Amino acid sequence: MSFTSRWVEPPADATELAGGLPAGFRAAGVACGLKPSGGLDLGLLVSSAPETVSAARFTRSGVLAAPVVLTQERCRLDGIRAVVANAGNANAATGRRGLEDAARVQGAAAMASGVSEDRVAVASTGVIGVPLDTDKVIRGISDARRELDGDGDGPFGDAIRTTDKFAKCASLELVLPSGTVRLSAQAKGAGMISPAFATMLCFVQTDAALEPETADLLLGVCVKRSFDRISVDGQLSTNDTAILMASGASGVEVAPESEDELRFGEALDALLRRLALLIVRDGEGAKRVGRVVVRGGDGEAVARAARAVAGSPLVKAALHGGDPNWGRIAQAVGGALHDSAPLALDIAIEGVQVCSGGAAVPHDPAALAAAVAGSEVEYAVGLPGEGAEDEVFFSDLSHEYVTINAEYTT
Amino acid sequence: MSFTSRWVEPPADATELAGGLPAGFRAAGVACGLKPSGGLDLGLLVSSAPETVSAARFTRSGVLAAPVVLTQERCRLDGIRAVVANAGNANAATGRRGLEDAARVQGAAAMASGVSEDRVAVASTGVIGVPLDTDKVIRGISDARRELDGDGDGPFGDAIRTTDKFAKCASLELVLPSGTVRLSAQAKGAGMISPAFATMLCFVQTDAALEPETADLLLGVCVKRSFDRISVDGQLSTNDTAILMASGASGVEVAPESEDELRFGEALDALLRRLALLIVRDGEGAKRVGRVVVRGGDGEAVARAARAVAGSPLVKAALHGGDPNWGRIAQAVGGALHDSAPLALDIAIEGVQVCSGGAAVPHDPAALAAAVAGSEVEYAVGLPGEGAEDEVFFSDLSHEYVTINAEYTT
Repeated sequence: MSFTSRWVEPPADATELAGGLPAGFRAAGVACGLKPSGGLDLGLLVSSAPETVSAARFTRSGVLAAPVVLTQERCRLDGIRAVVANAGNANAATGRRGLEDAARVQGAAAMASGVSEDRVAVASTGVIGVPLDTDKVIRGISDARRELDGDGDGPFGDAIRTTDKFAKCASLELVLPSGTVRLSAQAKGAGMISPAFATMLCFVQTDAALEPETADLLLGVCVKRSFDRISVDGQLSTNDTAILMASGASGVEVAPESEDELRFGEALDALLRRLALLIVRDGEGAKRVGRVVVRGGDGEAVARAARAVAGSPLVKAALHGGDPNWGRIAQAVGGALHDSAPLALDIAIEGVQVCSGGAAVPHDPAALAAAVAGSEVEYAVGLPGEGAEDEVFFSDLSHEYVTINAEYTT
Repeated sequence: MSFTSRWVEPPADATELAGGLPAGFRAAGVACGLKPSGGLDLGLLVSSAPETVSAARFTRSGVLAAPVVLTQERCRLDGIRAVVANAGNANAATGRRGLEDAARVQGAAAMASGVSEDRVAVASTGVIGVPLDTDKVIRGISDARRELDGDGDGPFGDAIRTTDKFAKCASLELVLPSGTVRLSAQAKGAGMISPAFATMLCFVQTDAALEPETADLLLGVCVKRSFDRISVDGQLSTNDTAILMASGASGVEVAPESEDELRFGEALDALLRRLALLIVRDGEGAKRVGRVVVRGGDGEAVARAARAVAGSPLVKAALHGGDPNWGRIAQAVGGALHDSAPLALDIAIEGVQVCSGGAAVPHDPAALAAAVAGSEVEYAVGLPGEGAEDEVFFSDLSHEYVTINAEYTT
């Protein structure tokens, strides 16, 4: 993962690895025929450690895909040892048959992994409302079982892609006070990406030993700072799933409230923020990444304002065009904070102050135009009052987004 | 206005006119140099009847443009006799100078119209955050005064256009029990169009005699059923203004709670719904118009669901592509109704049932594809429960929308 962003601090004492899973994990990705292209579309990930600890987060959508319902209701979420994930079909809005299909997939993956069913998480991504061809999936699981490998994170990461242009995988070695551990993660997502939930799909593995409460706490905090802070198109998915699994195979224990926990948490945070930013950078049709940070007001106001700016098609189209049209930032914030006029708004783009106390500030248009021509653009918004702060990362709105989404199923 | 839509019932006893203002009104539109194209950009509308009654609605944005603030705070909103409106500059986020500029424009228009300042409404539309060149506007007002005419609604309607491809004017003759009256209206809007407010700009004139309370009641009800029910891009504007003016020059009184009021209200309703639909049809880059109607649940749920579907870039891109991708309707509704799973959702597109109780329903894909190929597409969503209903009209998302908005100011 050569990607770097000024918005992600590299963790201390961490070394980027070319790939590979932490001790105790094996994975595979195969083509089972769900994608018309014939590409990899079925991933299997297994921990061989019986004491594996896990934590999970899911979409808050009112319309939950069958695999999300099944995993939430039928799994021991603090002890997941295997993940089976397919692309090409979301198994969402598929009714009772969809739940039975997800259960069949879970059963086959349990058999292939040699773990009990309640330790197998199921995840799907792709088109909504089409029955899942479980024959294909089960044959794929059988193939994947034979290919399980400690270096299988690459094919696994490829098998969960839909409209993603590139795979989103990362692998780290981390030196903690108590010893050296490894972390790896695979994520996917390019469309139907919005804050206020987990993410499309993200799987994280470590050979550190974590208490279930520690795993849950760290995943929760880090998801809030990463996948909860991105938007490609403001569209909450039916299938979002994020799972952290800790095999403990390194023998290094990350004890609650220890320096190990602090450092491990920092590394997990950087890892998830990098993957989240990769999803934004790979946003359908995206060319540029924006970050809006809103300060002042109260917690609800800054969150609403930041999401409104990140979700505004006018702001996103201007970002795409390299157009420093800051009036649209003002408009989006005003639209989010109904009936709050007069709003003494401050706006700066890449550090150039363009609006102060609600009124335009003279500035150098050439400098501003140059500032918005880069691959990352930062918008800072100040609301009256102090204390609260929120940020959202977002992609631009391009012709390619329209092309991709006007012709998705037809 | 040859446009017809199955979603607007033509009012009884009404005759469409080619144009022209009701008795008592004159208008003009001139080019004052705000639009780089040299097109008409300054409109003036005057009622000669001292007893003119009016009502007004404005944007609820937290960022209010100077003309909105000035008109709200300095006008007798029930007795507006003149409107001065410019395109090419929104006079928004322009601070104290913007308020003073709006006041100067109001003063010049009062002089030109021969009415007192507190009866002159000021409206602006165009780019945000740029000081208004009032010298140009005031020269324009002077030119417009000389051209005021009972047939000036056409030039006036042209002068308030920004990215609008066509002017949106209508003129009706209406036979009421108490006599014959006329109604005319001019609207503009193609981008930064979202529900939950008045509209971009809409001016309605009648020679009927209305009580101020009747004018306010009727405008309020009709705006709720028209401009509050449309979305081009979900973006609330800083400048939305709708003003109804009744000169009484026909001598026909529309008394409260009379058959006249009922029939007048029906005609006003049809007029505003037609103009609102014209705005959607002229939505930036738009090719198709969608209507989503959500039934069931409670008032808040149906409103949130309808707005989520209308605002979804995925739904809008599918509408553009003639893609019957109903899974995105399910996704948008689920995203709007957080944590309500399992949601037993029904979805029909152009009467073809595609989802029932949350699960896909077998249907004829060819028939469905044909149904979404027309210029208007209707999406019906059923939520569990009964009683509530809401509708939103929306445009599709096209390449042209991106082109228009990526290159607006540069």
